[in-house]
Amino acid sequence: MSHAVSPLAPKSFPEMPVVDGVRMATAEAGIKYKNRTDVLLMVFDEPASVAGVFTRSKCPSAPVDFCRANLATGRARAVVVNSGNANAFTGRRGRAATELTAKSASEAVGCSIDEIYLASTGVIGEPLDATKFAGVLGDMNGKAKGDFWLDAAKAIMTTDTYPKVATRTAEVGGVKVTINGIAKGAGMIAPDMATMLSFVVTDADIAPAALQDLLGKGVGPSFNAVTVDSDTSTSDTLMLFATGAAKNRGQKRVEQASEAPGFAGALNALLLDLAHQVVRDGEGARKMVEVTVTGAVSDESAKRIALSIANSPLVKTAIAGEDANWGRVVMAVGKAGEPADRDRLAISFGDIRVAVDGERDPDYSEAAASAVMKGQEIPVKVDLGLGHGAATVWTCDLTKEYVEINGDYRS
Amino acid sequence: MSHAVSPLAPKSFPEMPVVDGVRMATAEAGIKYKNRTDVLLMVFDEPASVAGVFTRSKCPSAPVDFCRANLATGRARAVVVNSGNANAFTGRRGRAATELTAKSASEAVGCSIDEIYLASTGVIGEPLDATKFAGVLGDMNGKAKGDFWLDAAKAIMTTDTYPKVATRTAEVGGVKVTINGIAKGAGMIAPDMATMLSFVVTDADIAPAALQDLLGKGVGPSFNAVTVDSDTSTSDTLMLFATGAAKNRGQKRVEQASEAPGFAGALNALLLDLAHQVVRDGEGARKMVEVTVTGAVSDESAKRIALSIANSPLVKTAIAGEDANWGRVVMAVGKAGEPADRDRLAISFGDIRVAVDGERDPDYSEAAASAVMKGQEIPVKVDLGLGHGAATVWTCDLTKEYVEINGDYRS
Repeated sequence: MSHAVSPLAPKSFPEMPVVDGVRMATAEAGIKYKNRTDVLLMVFDEPASVAGVFTRSKCPSAPVDFCRANLATGRARAVVVNSGNANAFTGRRGRAATELTAKSASEAVGCSIDEIYLASTGVIGEPLDATKFAGVLGDMNGKAKGDFWLDAAKAIMTTDTYPKVATRTAEVGGVKVTINGIAKGAGMIAPDMATMLSFVVTDADIAPAALQDLLGKGVGPSFNAVTVDSDTSTSDTLMLFATGAAKNRGQKRVEQASEAPGFAGALNALLLDLAHQVVRDGEGARKMVEVTVTGAVSDESAKRIALSIANSPLVKTAIAGEDANWGRVVMAVGKAGEPADRDRLAISFGDIRVAVDGERDPDYSEAAASAVMKGQEIPVKVDLGLGHGAATVWTCDLTKEYVEINGDYRS
Repeated sequence: MSHAVSPLAPKSFPEMPVVDGVRMATAEAGIKYKNRTDVLLMVFDEPASVAGVFTRSKCPSAPVDFCRANLATGRARAVVVNSGNANAFTGRRGRAATELTAKSASEAVGCSIDEIYLASTGVIGEPLDATKFAGVLGDMNGKAKGDFWLDAAKAIMTTDTYPKVATRTAEVGGVKVTINGIAKGAGMIAPDMATMLSFVVTDADIAPAALQDLLGKGVGPSFNAVTVDSDTSTSDTLMLFATGAAKNRGQKRVEQASEAPGFAGALNALLLDLAHQVVRDGEGARKMVEVTVTGAVSDESAKRIALSIANSPLVKTAIAGEDANWGRVVMAVGKAGEPADRDRLAISFGDIRVAVDGERDPDYSEAAASAVMKGQEIPVKVDLGLGHGAATVWTCDLTKEYVEINGDYRS
């Protein structure tokens, strides 16, 4: 099953520079299909600092469990990502498969097993035959190279309609550093679930604790502020690696996140860029929706209300229908369970305020609002009039194509 | 816009007996359209005990606010329900409209304003012209009659594809009593939101506090255990009236819910019957889905997990696609945030167990599971293997027709 490139896709890809200290290669291991690239290897010749955030699912995949355990070391030498099989809900055999994969990778790269990180995407509930990695990882390590980012992004695609890459630079203590990232999602292969994977690498020299702090802060307003259909994968994985190669150019190691504000800003921008690319490839998406809630009692409350709006099937179908249906926005505010006062609500689509003080805006022009809804980018703004809490989240519309992709693939 | 009768509709309507003490009539008040029945009046010639449960929305409609306030009296003489306008998000004018409607009804029936209950469904954000009720309510009171239940159910339909009625009998202290109910939902008229309204009347003599207790306990496993699309209306209203006419046949007044276990059982069965009818008329529904979760740490935890499954777009689209996609069920269990152990999960579709002990069931036959999925009634069973908590909820599948009804009505 393949789909046309999303109409919301970026018009071009950025030039992806080399990041010193990381090399990549792909191969065909035959996990599910023959003659298809299905493994990505990332190698750090010097141990890199590592940070990660993972799905909050109570039923995580075996690779997620494996990564969480290794994260305690703070050190990475290699990452193995495969498609075709998610190694999720595979019980004891799933754990055995992660151990065997990590063993193959550690032998190929020459490091210990607890310096390996794994991610899998594809069929769930099927045992993953990890013996297939043993034959390819050594050769991949030999040919891995730094100028490989777009290929790497392509290799981890499943039903993504375009590869997702982003790059930024920052100064750390006067030394220029680079941050590159790739992501996949929110595509779907029958009968799999959508999964978001993202790997970000910088040549900055940053201690693991500081790196985890930076990633934890960056993920809230980016990957944790996007939703396609409110369904959380068992395998969502976002990892950040710092090779430390910039120390050769005089960069002093960052021990605390607060020492690198410029890096934090660049990292956050890159994470948001990748997160937006994931939404823009949302299944069946035709419109990119930015939901901004202001005037809430707290930022957390604003975010919960914004996600209630962004996850509402009735709001998302109205946007698919190009209907400025603010009644459904009121409904979604009301069901969020957060403090809200119906009679202080104001709602705008783009710059067109359609409701104010709990009533239809007397100056509201339906024609003007309809013009906003016909666009590809739909800003939905809600002011609660209660406090200073604010949040922005992003989603896409809910179209018949979403149902088709996820329900009709058997026909 | 009209749709064919849902394929999940009941094959016949029950004979609805008269309930002593309540009379009903409908009229054309011209709220939104000419020549369309749009008002229902229920009259209790003797004050009835009243109980109610309402939307949990933080942005409730004006009639919901009005009913909540009057409920303190515990007494009802009349109910006015209109379609065409939901009187929601109408600010101060909304409150004025409820007051004027209640005044007209109290004059027509000859009672005080705080004995009136109101419900509205239809367009939101449009001021409701309540002066239109003044001309019709007096005449309606004059012609109201007891043998009118199916007509009453038809009068409150919006885009429901069939009227929803149910009846039960019970014995209270050796005296036979009747319980009748009507409901509307989960239909939709552009640009309105779906709303669930239900009115239940018994001739039993039950004190208001006991009645509220009975209703509060009955709604949990019935109306609060069904979901079409996870979107909660601003106007959801369920009211229960006890006319007390059975006292003329020697029924001793019920002061405590515990005195009437037979009544409670019949009421709960009736509420479940009506709630199921609402799901069976879910927008675009082709399959009725019963999600049962057992083995949770508590009943509350089981219900949250069951609702996470029932509200998951990926589960609902898989069911629409007749796909026994248990991976998506695992995903929905995992995202619920409740205690769950991946390696103890068992999942069945109907009697076909597809997963056990955190892995695909080795004896699982895909053909047998597919046969279950082709049916109109889809039982989904999840055992968590942790404790004794259990819950059942009902939903429908998510089809392209749902998106069409809610998104494409402008085209």
